[in-house]
Amino acid sequence: MSEKSVQEALIQGLPYIQALRGKTIVVKYGGNAMINAELKASVIKDIVFLHTVGIPVILVHGGGPEIEAMLRAVGKESRFVNGLRYTDEETMSIVQMVLCGKVNKEITALLEAEGVHALGICGIDGALFQAERENKLDLGFVGKIKKVNVNFLRAIMQGCRSIENDGQQDRIIPVISSVALGVGADKGLSLNVNADTAAALTAEAIKAEKLILMTDVAGLLRDIQNPESLIREANLADIDKLKKEGAVSKGMVPKLDCCEIALLGGVKAAHIIDGRVPHGLLAELFGGERIGTMICHSDFKKNTPEEN
Amino acid sequence: MSEKSVQEALIQGLPYIQALRGKTIVVKYGGNAMINAELKASVIKDIVFLHTVGIPVILVHGGGPEIEAMLRAVGKESRFVNGLRYTDEETMSIVQMVLCGKVNKEITALLEAEGVHALGICGIDGALFQAERENKLDLGFVGKIKKVNVNFLRAIMQGCRSIENDGQQDRIIPVISSVALGVGADKGLSLNVNADTAAALTAEAIKAEKLILMTDVAGLLRDIQNPESLIREANLADIDKLKKEGAVSKGMVPKLDCCEIALLGGVKAAHIIDGRVPHGLLAELFGGERIGTMICHSDFKKNTPEEN
Amino acid sequence: MSEKSVQEALIQGLPYIQALRGKTIVVKYGGNAMINAELKASVIKDIVFLHTVGIPVILVHGGGPEIEAMLRAVGKESRFVNGLRYTDEETMSIVQMVLCGKVNKEITALLEAEGVHALGICGIDGALFQAERENKLDLGFVGKIKKVNVNFLRAIMQGCRSIENDGQQDRIIPVISSVALGVGADKGLSLNVNADTAAALTAEAIKAEKLILMTDVAGLLRDIQNPESLIREANLADIDKLKKEGAVSKGMVPKLDCCEIALLGGVKAAHIIDGRVPHGLLAELFGGERIGTMICHSDFKKNTPEEN
Amino acid sequence: MSEKSVQEALIQGLPYIQALRGKTIVVKYGGNAMINAELKASVIKDIVFLHTVGIPVILVHGGGPEIEAMLRAVGKESRFVNGLRYTDEETMSIVQMVLCGKVNKEITALLEAEGVHALGICGIDGALFQAERENKLDLGFVGKIKKVNVNFLRAIMQGCRSIENDGQQDRIIPVISSVALGVGADKGLSLNVNADTAAALTAEAIKAEKLILMTDVAGLLRDIQNPESLIREANLADIDKLKKEGAVSKGMVPKLDCCEIALLGGVKAAHIIDGRVPHGLLAELFGGERIGTMICHSDFKKNTPEEN
Amino acid sequence: MSEKSVQEALIQGLPYIQALRGKTIVVKYGGNAMINAELKASVIKDIVFLHTVGIPVILVHGGGPEIEAMLRAVGKESRFVNGLRYTDEETMSIVQMVLCGKVNKEITALLEAEGVHALGICGIDGALFQAERENKLDLGFVGKIKKVNVNFLRAIMQGCRSIENDGQQDRIIPVISSVALGVGADKGLSLNVNADTAAALTAEAIKAEKLILMTDVAGLLRDIQNPESLIREANLADIDKLKKEGAVSKGMVPKLDCCEIALLGGVKAAHIIDGRVPHGLLAELFGGERIGTMICHSDFKKNTPEEN
Amino acid sequence: MSEKSVQEALIQGLPYIQALRGKTIVVKYGGNAMINAELKASVIKDIVFLHTVGIPVILVHGGGPEIEAMLRAVGKESRFVNGLRYTDEETMSIVQMVLCGKVNKEITALLEAEGVHALGICGIDGALFQAERENKLDLGFVGKIKKVNVNFLRAIMQGCRSIENDGQQDRIIPVISSVALGVGADKGLSLNVNADTAAALTAEAIKAEKLILMTDVAGLLRDIQNPESLIREANLADIDKLKKEGAVSKGMVPKLDCCEIALLGGVKAAHIIDGRVPHGLLAELFGGERIGTMICHSDFKKNTPEEN
Repeated sequence: MSEKSVQEALIQGLPYIQALRGKTIVVKYGGNAMINAELKASVIKDIVFLHTVGIPVILVHGGGPEIEAMLRAVGKESRFVNGLRYTDEETMSIVQMVLCGKVNKEITALLEAEGVHALGICGIDGALFQAERENKLDLGFVGKIKKVNVNFLRAIMQGCRSIENDGQQDRIIPVISSVALGVGADKGLSLNVNADTAAALTAEAIKAEKLILMTDVAGLLRDIQNPESLIREANLADIDKLKKEGAVSKGMVPKLDCCEIALLGGVKAAHIIDGRVPHGLLAELFGGERIGTMICHSDFKKNTPEEN
Repeated sequence: MSEKSVQEALIQGLPYIQALRGKTIVVKYGGNAMINAELKASVIKDIVFLHTVGIPVILVHGGGPEIEAMLRAVGKESRFVNGLRYTDEETMSIVQMVLCGKVNKEITALLEAEGVHALGICGIDGALFQAERENKLDLGFVGKIKKVNVNFLRAIMQGCRSIENDGQQDRIIPVISSVALGVGADKGLSLNVNADTAAALTAEAIKAEKLILMTDVAGLLRDIQNPESLIREANLADIDKLKKEGAVSKGMVPKLDCCEIALLGGVKAAHIIDGRVPHGLLAELFGGERIGTMICHSDFKKNTPEEN
Repeated sequence: MSEKSVQEALIQGLPYIQALRGKTIVVKYGGNAMINAELKASVIKDIVFLHTVGIPVILVHGGGPEIEAMLRAVGKESRFVNGLRYTDEETMSIVQMVLCGKVNKEITALLEAEGVHALGICGIDGALFQAERENKLDLGFVGKIKKVNVNFLRAIMQGCRSIENDGQQDRIIPVISSVALGVGADKGLSLNVNADTAAALTAEAIKAEKLILMTDVAGLLRDIQNPESLIREANLADIDKLKKEGAVSKGMVPKLDCCEIALLGGVKAAHIIDGRVPHGLLAELFGGERIGTMICHSDFKKNTPEEN
Repeated sequence: MSEKSVQEALIQGLPYIQALRGKTIVVKYGGNAMINAELKASVIKDIVFLHTVGIPVILVHGGGPEIEAMLRAVGKESRFVNGLRYTDEETMSIVQMVLCGKVNKEITALLEAEGVHALGICGIDGALFQAERENKLDLGFVGKIKKVNVNFLRAIMQGCRSIENDGQQDRIIPVISSVALGVGADKGLSLNVNADTAAALTAEAIKAEKLILMTDVAGLLRDIQNPESLIREANLADIDKLKKEGAVSKGMVPKLDCCEIALLGGVKAAHIIDGRVPHGLLAELFGGERIGTMICHSDFKKNTPEEN
Repeated sequence: MSEKSVQEALIQGLPYIQALRGKTIVVKYGGNAMINAELKASVIKDIVFLHTVGIPVILVHGGGPEIEAMLRAVGKESRFVNGLRYTDEETMSIVQMVLCGKVNKEITALLEAEGVHALGICGIDGALFQAERENKLDLGFVGKIKKVNVNFLRAIMQGCRSIENDGQQDRIIPVISSVALGVGADKGLSLNVNADTAAALTAEAIKAEKLILMTDVAGLLRDIQNPESLIREANLADIDKLKKEGAVSKGMVPKLDCCEIALLGGVKAAHIIDGRVPHGLLAELFGGERIGTMICHSDFKKNTPEEN
Repeated sequence: MSEKSVQEALIQGLPYIQALRGKTIVVKYGGNAMINAELKASVIKDIVFLHTVGIPVILVHGGGPEIEAMLRAVGKESRFVNGLRYTDEETMSIVQMVLCGKVNKEITALLEAEGVHALGICGIDGALFQAERENKLDLGFVGKIKKVNVNFLRAIMQGCRSIENDGQQDRIIPVISSVALGVGADKGLSLNVNADTAAALTAEAIKAEKLILMTDVAGLLRDIQNPESLIREANLADIDKLKKEGAVSKGMVPKLDCCEIALLGGVKAAHIIDGRVPHGLLAELFGGERIGTMICHSDFKKNTPEEN
């Protein structure tokens, strides 16, 4: 790309920035984009860009392969109850260490290295995610979020708006691990929660503009076998229909459920994007070809600034 | 340019945005860029971009050819005293009408049409530019600015930060005509002031990061005859030397003086740019090839985010 | 008047100041009071007084004779369509120049010379008056205001509350030209709007206490032929009745309509006053003999502080 | 006075209001003006006027004849030690009751009846006046103020700025009795303090513009025998000279000392005025003939808005 | 008590502090606790404790025996109309002096001596208690409170939150005398009001958590003759029943009415406590054995932090 | 302890609360008090008490035995370079996981379970601790803190002051792991830092009143062999002398250095306390017998509220 095109590209991106400025985006960060160093750098850059031009981002992450590696390292074997993985107390302790102590702080450090401020927390801090165990015999220390203490999140973001760091940045990027604080009968316990759900509930609570779930697939396919059959835009009715027709892959169903939670809770659009595409976040948001599926309340939308 | 490159270009522009975010830029808008419709649109777009990504812009403008046209339309002939154009009261009245009533509001309307808020004022409003006549026998209603009421400018920008216009924009772009309010012996008079100087003094008073003077030339040339001899970066010592060597064109001398005023007053860099280049403002600021001359305090600077 | 009476008069004015303190008054400034130098000075003094004792004033003005003079100066002839004056683009350009560049800045300069801060703007600034052409074939560039961006006006006034100018004044007086910004199909155009209507809509939007229309007549007369038949107080029902009876002069009808708009929009009282009386504004508001007609919602009011 | 002159008088008072707006005036209220019902009403009106047009007033008062009356009523006889009146504990208790419970609340009620808010306190509240006994054997419960807790006074005035009472008034008038809180060896005692001194120290602490001492004499006389010899303006050097010449009456000396304390502490002017003149406060401040003596730092001043 | 138990006792009190933190308590201070020096010191300490740990207290007081003493001292005899004590103007003046000038300032001084800030006011200040005479022929200057100007109280408390006095304390304790400002037909008069009622109405207006009435009896007894029959908790229905059964002493009935006013106005609990018990306030609130009767809306409550 | 003594104990603790209210205390939490469940609960209670009565606490912690356990669990063997333990990248990763993911969140969860809000962060978040490696060949990923980004900490605490959680609590307790963010040549690395030093530097940066280091010893002993020789108070000169005399144990030297850093940086007092004593924190601060050594700038202090 010639240098001359920088200014042209910036001007081309302008309407998208104008359309999203001041509107919060909740990104569930996960999958390959957390493992591959190049993709990781690309996601970090995209988030720094959004943050820098005035589009607040909240990052929610799970752990994935890093948890498996640590469980193996300490010789912990997985246990299954009724065919479901059971998270015992020791496993939960390791999950929490990896999520809150390793993945969370690594993302935070990468963001700080880009010259923005980040704050790595989990659902225990400020009782952000308050959960209860639903099925403790079968699942162990796995929780269902009952309440998001969004006042706490707002207070931190508000407070951080006043940091003066060389006049350049005036906000902080929250980075949140999917660990919750037990309440009720489970008071004080650490509970593992699904990161997609945590992101969706956070988006709902903070009244986000968009929820973006990063995945390792191309998006929602009309024909699971055919990657060419990507559905670029869909509404809630379409999703319902596809689910009823059994046309949705097993792994995609809970992600669609999260999108539905967010949309019904007031979020304007939910995107399931292909985390394997470098700078896919910007491409999806800033008028490139869709790299996944955008789900809205009712009508199909074109990928224009007005309708993005 | 392929669509894919939008996100790449945005990421390429990111360090420049990070380096300038929250830092005010004062732009003297003038020359061809005020006449040619396409250039005008390009300047407006560039300013909207800067504003949108969080780089506050203050626009100062003069009038140029539009004033001449109106003077002709009303049959007003120019009068000269000691070889200098004399601005009599009637001429001043027309100058003010064209600047504050035509040019100023046209720019304001163009910015509003791009979805940002602009506020068209002149040096009379809030006693922003307080001036005295220096040489009233020879020049008439021409003033020299004695004080910039920067508190007023800050108060307006501060107040406007709270406007909620669909959550998209949170600041206003001041558009300022180069008309001043007489003080002292000239209390209450409207006085014509040089727009470059008004911009430089505004940049100094508001503690701007940059002063940008848009001109109709390629920039500062080492050899006035040779457009290829563009000096891309210079420091104050270089400028002094060039002026002493007589290597600077007559029209360029007062512009260099303005740059000097701004730099000595604490502005970090002054740019004399070629207003005839579309999107030249973004090109100059965001890492494209220089389209003019950047003047700094001491050392030569590369066009990198750190040093821009 | 002996010096001793100053303090007595101040004490006499006290209950009126107490009754109006902190309540905004929108004044449509026009007619003779804009031409006659002495009247002009008297209006300015009255406004400075109100502002100084804590009664915020917003000034809205049209142009009148100055526009005619400039049209003549540039040799522009009036064009009529279906018997109505047609404002073509060139005329509109001159109207705007005179209103925003001459009249507006002159008022602003007079206020500044009295030691208060004023801000001269028009409906284009901050998209304050958003209008559409209603009847473009017959009237040309004449608009009807669809929305007053009152948030912008509030933000400016709020911001300006913080200006510290020797501790004396803490607010600014907005001076607004009756030029609007086209929206919808007329996006970006400058449109001429009626100044009385602009004042009435501003009063409604800002939730003003009073709307005051300065005219060149004695007020509303019961008998158009008889200046002694001045109606000093009226309510909306009276006005309706008078209009139905045809007892209202042609020029007075649109002014009464403006009063009605304001009153129905929540303004407490509308005054049509005789702009030819020196310091008539203070006389009308501070317990002198009425110099015009005050219109309220329902009942007749005496000119006492409680009921003024 | 005809009704027409109200507006003229208001305009005549305008420059004085402009000059004093936002500047605090501390008034020591005492003497005849506290006894005579008509004078009392006149002082209250003057203070309400100042407050209403945006000139903050702080009232400090002593007790005078009311204390004597109550002491007589309870059959308490004065005791003298070394020729000085001795304030024993019982006397102090009565002094405090009369000042804080009678005079203070009466003034407060009169101000409230005029539609403004007042707050009656004494030096015990918030430890506003912190004093120690200097000469307890000879004077008993009489204190010397060591510290004015001006933060407390500022906090109350700040807090009260937010009271919304029908939108009319936005500040409160503090009414302060000259009773202090003992500190150090006298911790917790109520101590009687001189009201002129309390006013002067309050003016100094709050950085007042003016200190005004209301007395029962015509002001400072050049010849004590000759009421025509009133000195209308004086500076500190003049005062010194007069005192050395013995040309100052015995009762006037401590008042001049108070003026000196205030002026040396940064107050701009101190006025000793004749409290027996109705509306004398407004006359003195708003350009009437001086009804007392104004003392400034150095030069004589004319009674003009600029120099008042 | 050994030193070691201090920390244990603090930890034992912790849940009570947590339960009440930030919740306002209105205390009617009266009876023996105002006369006995030791009890007085104990009440002051308790209030300072509550204030210090972040539980805002508002003190309302009457006068009692001190008023009688002063009336006797000035030889004022009580007058009875229709068997009711009649408060004539002179008596009211003495009541006010004693309440506002003696009792109020004494409490204020005691609090200040403990290192906290207090502000002694009455219902005249800021028109806090606005009252009318109900029965002026029979009672004279006795009023019934029509409105509590709670905005004024809030504004003062808000303003005082910002006092920085060595960083230790950040709030003020209002101490309020039961004297009201006449409004309507009684405009400007000082009126005596019942202190229990004033406290109840203040609690209602400020939305207090608790109203505490200090008395000289053990609390509400089931059998007036038997001090052992103390009712420790009751709800509104119980109270109704007891009153209907005639089981309530004559002096207790108006106190129960005050509790009812407060509870129906939104206060969570009203306590009638035995002011003769040292540190009874802390004992009642912090889990000691009840020293009086707590009245709630409906159900009996245990004296635990959750239910206190 | 009888119930009656609760109120007595609270009153006994009052002067200590008054002396410390609003003053920040930085506690280094470590040693046995982190392992023993009962001690852990006692420390948590003490901190909740301080927080609840308005004494802000910042907790800094290391890891100790939990790190060793995890290193063993993953089979990581310690490596020594020049006799010093070398923290390689893998070890650092485990240290970070244990500190930030296990210990930090456990403390946070315990505080949340007590009904207060806590926020678990480390020095990477907001670049709170910015460090460089001093001796990377010998120590590996061990850093020395160059800067504490105290603005970030203040912003978070400020923001959190606004959380409304049932009106009970209005602040958050920061819980900080001793992991730093590399800057300069070590940009972006996670570095292990000494928790005592991190606490001391935090105390200095936030201008804390006290630094409290919890240890597993009785305090500073005059004779290392004799636990009875506890030095209860010392000043900086005493410490210097003891160090020169070699009378200080090897483990105590760096702790004394931390105290010195804090004291020289403006902290008023540093306490080295015996973490093995239940509720020792409250005992030390609230007037119990010292359970360790308090070090001040110059003079010996008694354990009274004024001098604590």
